[in-house]
Amino acid sequence: MNDLLDRLRRRVGDAHVLTEPADVAAYVVDWTGVHVGRALAVVRPGSTEEVAAVVAACHEAGTTIVPQGGNTGLVGGGVPDASGSQVVLSLGRMRQVREVDPVAGTMTVDAGVVLADVQAVAEQAGRLFPMSLGSEGSCTIGGNLATNAGGTAVLRYGMSRELVLGLEVVLPDGRLWDGLRGLRKDNTGYDLTQLFVGSEGTLGVITGAVLRLFPATPRHATAWVAVRDVASAVSLLALAQQHAGAHLATFEIANRTALELVLAHLPGTSDPLAETSDWYVLVELAGAESEGGLDDALEALLGEAVDAGLASDAAVAGSPAQRSALWALREGISEAQKVESATLKHDVTLPIAGLAEWVAEIGPILQARLPGVRPVTYGHVGDGNLHYNLNAPLVDGHADDAALRSAAVDLSTAIYDAVAAGNGSISAEHGLGRTKAAAGAAYKSDVEVDLMRAVKQAIDPDGLMNPGVLLPPQS
Amino acid sequence: MNDLLDRLRRRVGDAHVLTEPADVAAYVVDWTGVHVGRALAVVRPGSTEEVAAVVAACHEAGTTIVPQGGNTGLVGGGVPDASGSQVVLSLGRMRQVREVDPVAGTMTVDAGVVLADVQAVAEQAGRLFPMSLGSEGSCTIGGNLATNAGGTAVLRYGMSRELVLGLEVVLPDGRLWDGLRGLRKDNTGYDLTQLFVGSEGTLGVITGAVLRLFPATPRHATAWVAVRDVASAVSLLALAQQHAGAHLATFEIANRTALELVLAHLPGTSDPLAETSDWYVLVELAGAESEGGLDDALEALLGEAVDAGLASDAAVAGSPAQRSALWALREGISEAQKVESATLKHDVTLPIAGLAEWVAEIGPILQARLPGVRPVTYGHVGDGNLHYNLNAPLVDGHADDAALRSAAVDLSTAIYDAVAAGNGSISAEHGLGRTKAAAGAAYKSDVEVDLMRAVKQAIDPDGLMNPGVLLPPQS
Repeated sequence: MNDLLDRLRRRVGDAHVLTEPADVAAYVVDWTGVHVGRALAVVRPGSTEEVAAVVAACHEAGTTIVPQGGNTGLVGGGVPDASGSQVVLSLGRMRQVREVDPVAGTMTVDAGVVLADVQAVAEQAGRLFPMSLGSEGSCTIGGNLATNAGGTAVLRYGMSRELVLGLEVVLPDGRLWDGLRGLRKDNTGYDLTQLFVGSEGTLGVITGAVLRLFPATPRHATAWVAVRDVASAVSLLALAQQHAGAHLATFEIANRTALELVLAHLPGTSDPLAETSDWYVLVELAGAESEGGLDDALEALLGEAVDAGLASDAAVAGSPAQRSALWALREGISEAQKVESATLKHDVTLPIAGLAEWVAEIGPILQARLPGVRPVTYGHVGDGNLHYNLNAPLVDGHADDAALRSAAVDLSTAIYDAVAAGNGSISAEHGLGRTKAAAGAAYKSDVEVDLMRAVKQAIDPDGLMNPGVLLPPQS
Repeated sequence: MNDLLDRLRRRVGDAHVLTEPADVAAYVVDWTGVHVGRALAVVRPGSTEEVAAVVAACHEAGTTIVPQGGNTGLVGGGVPDASGSQVVLSLGRMRQVREVDPVAGTMTVDAGVVLADVQAVAEQAGRLFPMSLGSEGSCTIGGNLATNAGGTAVLRYGMSRELVLGLEVVLPDGRLWDGLRGLRKDNTGYDLTQLFVGSEGTLGVITGAVLRLFPATPRHATAWVAVRDVASAVSLLALAQQHAGAHLATFEIANRTALELVLAHLPGTSDPLAETSDWYVLVELAGAESEGGLDDALEALLGEAVDAGLASDAAVAGSPAQRSALWALREGISEAQKVESATLKHDVTLPIAGLAEWVAEIGPILQARLPGVRPVTYGHVGDGNLHYNLNAPLVDGHADDAALRSAAVDLSTAIYDAVAAGNGSISAEHGLGRTKAAAGAAYKSDVEVDLMRAVKQAIDPDGLMNPGVLLPPQS
């Protein structure tokens, strides 16, 4: 092991091979705090060549590697296990934007560029990189691609895998695959880029990417809408697609509990509507500078929604500041949940047509298992994706975190069983990581697990890349 | 072999195991006429279960399989080799539309449904399935997905792989993978769907698919625009993106030679403009019923294009019939080329920023190799994709097909070398098939070919699925 550490130090410099507990601490625990591991070392290479050298050295030593971006994952896919034998390979020093081509609509970046910086560079070039999610100020684009991140722009622009044209990947044996092609069309064989996207660091280390840029959409029309129930939200979505067509950019749902937590815990927030409602939708249309009429389309949509009894009231943003205030209600939910009490997160997709029924049916099932448990339900209705999170029940005004923790397996199993019965997915956008690797396999057919294992075996025959993540260890 | 044929007949019925030369003929020659093979038999199963039984029987017998859809491919990927030992597995009898869900925006289909039928069923449900290409009246959706087909709607909606949510695939050993999930988001492991899309029948047989449907766009604004040159077309594209934003649906280029062949060979066509031009663009905006203003946006775009010197004239469609007439000019090119003389096809992508320079430079190189050779250049500028096809030179008013044929390798090599030098792709949308399998590998890095071979070996270890297609035989 000391041989390996010496070799790593020679390749990336002593300062970038961290072994002191204080230096390593932030890299071995995930954002949720649930996964706390240990590492042989945290290595922070500064270039693709250094990444390749690190991987080659680990390959030779038979040491397993955990690639890590901004460490904002929610399923423990970027932190080491408890063995203390793994190398955490952090991409955080690789922060160069290599090229911006506004004509072709592409940007080539290092894996460690923070998502918010990608957005900003695109905006400076008069273009849009649409991916947007809560952790955008600290997550890295390499991590986004390795986990096929979602977010609030999926409805219009798709998941991460739809926003990338090519990748640069260091393979498990240290060889470099240069797939950095910025072509919209390249039909010359298996789509290796799409194979690595969403592979959660189990097939190699993404070191660079060619991203797709889109026409800028500086115009917005935004509303926070009180809707009667989930079924009304789904009907409103269809109406919004009719009215706004290609301009519909956002369609997010949240329940009253979610809003109340934000109002209680996040300073500066306020309820934009006078009356309370069980459910809300944040809807936004977006268009180019030349495209007027967004406000009119939104107004027509809301008028028809009220007439049809789908919505009871709506707050329309009249300024960029008001728009930000509405978005803060949606984007603050995860943080507010964390402040409130212990939480249990689920990130599920259902077929949109079955969403309302699923929500109606799962509530009583959970109450029977843990009376008083508080579902904080929000997410991306347009994608059929709910963050169906649970906060601890209140007992005499205090959150009973212990009760939630001891019922956790029982509650999650009930939710996943209901998702499977509804032909849904137990991970819409967070991935499987360590948390859900076993569940992911359990809810899949044997054929599908066999195919995934065959792919893993083909690309990483020695099993050195992020073992235990995405696929459970073989028994 | 007779054992195998008997077994196949028992499983799918005597009528659906073709061995008579007259019955087999249409299945062993491709649309271009270049690839003429022989088959042990053509088998036409009528269900997924029958496909699985056929594949299992071939697997047991060690017989290789060539999956075939509508047999409209242009690179020989769906026809057997000359050995006479292969089974052609035609999906043509599997034509059920299994389900349409307009709310979720999905349609589940058998692989053998003809693309035009998919379009029609979507339209009847008030939705749009955007894929559109010249052979849509006979190509099948399974073939479209197996080859990751492109077409004229890629600019707005993406390639085939962006239009599919899930697949049903019979694996090389006859097992069935049921990946028919209609979820916009399902982040639970490697994206097996994307692995099979574009794999050209080399990893398994696609038997069903869940397709994405989009909001209908019944409104159109369409123009045939005379542009000065390729650089002007690229500038016009940027202008169109500014003016039309999300409504820009089509942006196709054609040179004067292409138009002249259509006018000469296709009855009922006429030049919509009084003056000739070296280059033309077909531009179309499309929107929902509620979205007006397309005509105004197109007019503003064309006005600015003329003012900027990018365009000299334009014909705007004033009726559906006029729209069809303009589209016929674009869609008739391939057929007109075939009538005119021998042709040599190339389907290349270049980075859009380098497109004009590439076209300017390749012309003289080809003239030096075959004086008088006629480039018929058309394609999808918005994707950087040109069908850079060559017709035989005219000698005393007659096409010298022999001269084109004997110079073919020389000409194609010059084009592919220039594409590689320009960081492009030698197959934008047609795939590699048999025609380009060797070239595809030759222009890729060893690492990339190794990765593709590893994937092939993992999924089809016995090499029974469409050998010689996509990857060349190993020496």
